[in-house]
Amino acid sequence: MKRALPVTREENFPEWYQAVVDQADLAETSPVRGCMIIKPWGWGVWELIQAALDRRIKETGHDNCYFPLFIPMSFIAQEASHVEGFAKEMAVVTHHRLKAQDGKLVVDPASELEEPLVVRPTSETIIGDAFRRWISSYRDLPVLMNQWANVVRWEMRTRLFLRTAEFLWQEGHTAHATKEDALEETLKMLEVYRELAEDVLAMPVVVGEKPENERFPGADSTFSIEAMMQDGKALQAGTSHYLGQNFSRAQNIRFQAATGELDYCHTTSWGVSTRLIGGVIMTHGDDDGLRLPPRIAPKQVVIVPMLREKPEDAELLAYCEALEDELNGVTAFSQPMRVKLDRKPIRSANKRWDWLRRGAPILLEIGPRDMAGNQVTMIRRDRLRDGDKILSQGLARAEFVARAPALLSEIQANLFAEAKARLDGNIRSDFKDFDAIAAYFGEAGEDDAKSAFKGFVRAPWARPTGPELEEIETRLKARKLTLRNIPVGQTRTEDACVFTGRPAVEEILIARAY
Amino acid sequence: MKRALPVTREENFPEWYQAVVDQADLAETSPVRGCMIIKPWGWGVWELIQAALDRRIKETGHDNCYFPLFIPMSFIAQEASHVEGFAKEMAVVTHHRLKAQDGKLVVDPASELEEPLVVRPTSETIIGDAFRRWISSYRDLPVLMNQWANVVRWEMRTRLFLRTAEFLWQEGHTAHATKEDALEETLKMLEVYRELAEDVLAMPVVVGEKPENERFPGADSTFSIEAMMQDGKALQAGTSHYLGQNFSRAQNIRFQAATGELDYCHTTSWGVSTRLIGGVIMTHGDDDGLRLPPRIAPKQVVIVPMLREKPEDAELLAYCEALEDELNGVTAFSQPMRVKLDRKPIRSANKRWDWLRRGAPILLEIGPRDMAGNQVTMIRRDRLRDGDKILSQGLARAEFVARAPALLSEIQANLFAEAKARLDGNIRSDFKDFDAIAAYFGEAGEDDAKSAFKGFVRAPWARPTGPELEEIETRLKARKLTLRNIPVGQTRTEDACVFTGRPAVEEILIARAY
Repeated sequence: MKRALPVTREENFPEWYQAVVDQADLAETSPVRGCMIIKPWGWGVWELIQAALDRRIKETGHDNCYFPLFIPMSFIAQEASHVEGFAKEMAVVTHHRLKAQDGKLVVDPASELEEPLVVRPTSETIIGDAFRRWISSYRDLPVLMNQWANVVRWEMRTRLFLRTAEFLWQEGHTAHATKEDALEETLKMLEVYRELAEDVLAMPVVVGEKPENERFPGADSTFSIEAMMQDGKALQAGTSHYLGQNFSRAQNIRFQAATGELDYCHTTSWGVSTRLIGGVIMTHGDDDGLRLPPRIAPKQVVIVPMLREKPEDAELLAYCEALEDELNGVTAFSQPMRVKLDRKPIRSANKRWDWLRRGAPILLEIGPRDMAGNQVTMIRRDRLRDGDKILSQGLARAEFVARAPALLSEIQANLFAEAKARLDGNIRSDFKDFDAIAAYFGEAGEDDAKSAFKGFVRAPWARPTGPELEEIETRLKARKLTLRNIPVGQTRTEDACVFTGRPAVEEILIARAY
Repeated sequence: MKRALPVTREENFPEWYQAVVDQADLAETSPVRGCMIIKPWGWGVWELIQAALDRRIKETGHDNCYFPLFIPMSFIAQEASHVEGFAKEMAVVTHHRLKAQDGKLVVDPASELEEPLVVRPTSETIIGDAFRRWISSYRDLPVLMNQWANVVRWEMRTRLFLRTAEFLWQEGHTAHATKEDALEETLKMLEVYRELAEDVLAMPVVVGEKPENERFPGADSTFSIEAMMQDGKALQAGTSHYLGQNFSRAQNIRFQAATGELDYCHTTSWGVSTRLIGGVIMTHGDDDGLRLPPRIAPKQVVIVPMLREKPEDAELLAYCEALEDELNGVTAFSQPMRVKLDRKPIRSANKRWDWLRRGAPILLEIGPRDMAGNQVTMIRRDRLRDGDKILSQGLARAEFVARAPALLSEIQANLFAEAKARLDGNIRSDFKDFDAIAAYFGEAGEDDAKSAFKGFVRAPWARPTGPELEEIETRLKARKLTLRNIPVGQTRTEDACVFTGRPAVEEILIARAY
């Protein structure tokens, strides 16, 4: 069975992923270790994700702003757990000048900085420093900020979108008078992320709280949304942190309450990144390439004129241009529909496959016969094949124009339903102890490329902490397993903890993960 | 005469500028040398500038993309003049890890990079490297790319928005088969910048080509738009470069022509930055703060309810909310009008002055009498005072709602007309030689803060080059003067060159500049 990609998900999932990134023209590696080049099609997806999220961030009362790329080294040292978590993987600027020496360019030793600067891995400390200056009274609270920015974490093993040294994200940072307010904010943004993932990216997620060992360095509690990729692994797709008074104490962010007393603020932070694009690929991609949910497809309808380098081409092109104009006037998802007429001087068959690999939701192939019959031939990316056969459908032009928004909604819903069925159908909760879970997942050390689909396990646990949790983490790690999150909305379990045998207090999600 | 700022333009222009940045809540300095924090109101202005320009960049056929923040040091060395121009002022990443030592955080010497990375000061070299891989045939051309990014140049003297170590910009990079195509692109984007400056920022500019000594390092020709600030100085507000085959030769960016021959591409680059916001401040600000052209005002109409902490407040607030809703449904400049009801629990008089200093174009102060009469009391930021008196106007509510879009257009046009009159009225062209020009501008070494308004001089010159031009540059520099650009659309002059006495070929603009 021939497919458009050189490798299938079944054959080798990691290689298939790289093939989609490459053949859907999303991104490529750069000459700079671990840094990616995001190409126009990938950037277009990111712009749409940004727009959808930015609107929600503003609707929930946050203001965008911008803080410096660099953070003085001493700032990083201010919050103890934060140091632990981030100090190991940062780009450090130590000099500010190059000079020519013996015909070569070298770092000028005379330009050494008094204090090294790190390229922000995240901005709690530099933003906290401003909060300290900005906040003096309860009247100044809450402070609700967000920034869209690039950040750098010096990762050893990188994979495009999923784990890169430089990545793009938004980071929200807020300060509140009370724990209740800050926790409400933390959960509100978690819900925004869930909605973004499910309604915009068509990527169903499990919403929950991270166990202690998976918290953000310096947080009192961390919440996440976890999606299931087509190889059964979990992808942490967004996190929201209640930072308690840890950063405000470390940075002296205080306010005078209405009563006149001074108190430390309660702060939060939350972020999602270009990693989401990796999630979209591994949720919706198939062996012919990417399938984009229409809401984040830079082009939702692509028109390919079947040109044959003959005089009739002009007429056919005119038909397609009129169709393009008409479709551009249509509204889908409350926005102008995004339509492209592909005029590129290459073979129509190549265009077809280029757009199918890129995941454009609807492809219209228009030949002389379509023009004569005033119709269009439509290929839906979500229902591409019947066995080896490519499915296409002739529709009266007017009918297609009228139905296009509904078709896009249907494709969006189909992609979500398919992924939702996969997630819901692959969370096992029938294991009584860790040995059974370990046996189910199989030995570690297995080649990633060949590991079978396992999905998630949801298991009762006693919420162990400290050294006991560390020991559990070690056992999990030996099998490449991780604790994902404690799903919200649980009813109390009566079972025994799979790790300790003690009575469980809740269920936790266990999975291999990106 | 009391004004809202602590210092007037007349008293001390640089201090006045800082006062506007501060009191209009646009930005502030950060603990990181030369890097600024852009606050929500300033960021809102930038978002609107971005949106207006991004639309035009896309309409002219360019795709957005994203390239790495870091550039290998060896890349910077590839284009000789580029090295000259940029090597002196870059942030250099030399290590990738910090570690704890004796309880302190230090740079881990073991983490030294094999090749230092510079934080991009501009991206010609890293993007050129991709062009080399992407381009093989004339069919691949033109390649039309743009990215929105942060860049870093290690400036010694910084001023918020005007000259900061880190700044935000867009940088366009294109590759073409012929010089003609590349030059056409260079001028097309220059025109986009002129339109952005004049139609969106209401900031009139002189469009022209830079003289040889002011070219971008590595360019064959550089064009700019130059605006006149209220202290008479020039601000280079945008540049567009024809890079010839300099970068394509240095980086081996070649294509096979239709004839089969291999040739080097002709490339261009062009950019505008957050510096534009500095231009807006110094073009439109007055002694009461900022005045924002409505097209880039984050809030175009601000409603201030005259609350008095009495039970009647609820009714007044309801009146204002209904007005806000109604105004939010109005379209201005083809977009939903941006309206804010200021509910902050502070005194109404303070709100008035906060919004006037921030430059909101229209302020509506609504008291019980307005509510009773179903009217609004309007203050226009562009016509704020009659002597010391604040001008306000009562308008029937329905009339204001109907006229609001026209009022905003009128304010936009007024601000432009005022700045245009200043520019056009202050370009002198009556000097016969450089001594007369020098005498007009006065001695150098004058305190910036007290230098009188001089404006621009437009003078005939013979387009000297090489050492002769260098010598002229030195003479100008001694008087803090610079050659700005050679305005487009000139008719040939018959006069003598003010520098050399030889027959002139064109006129050039001379000014003090930011």
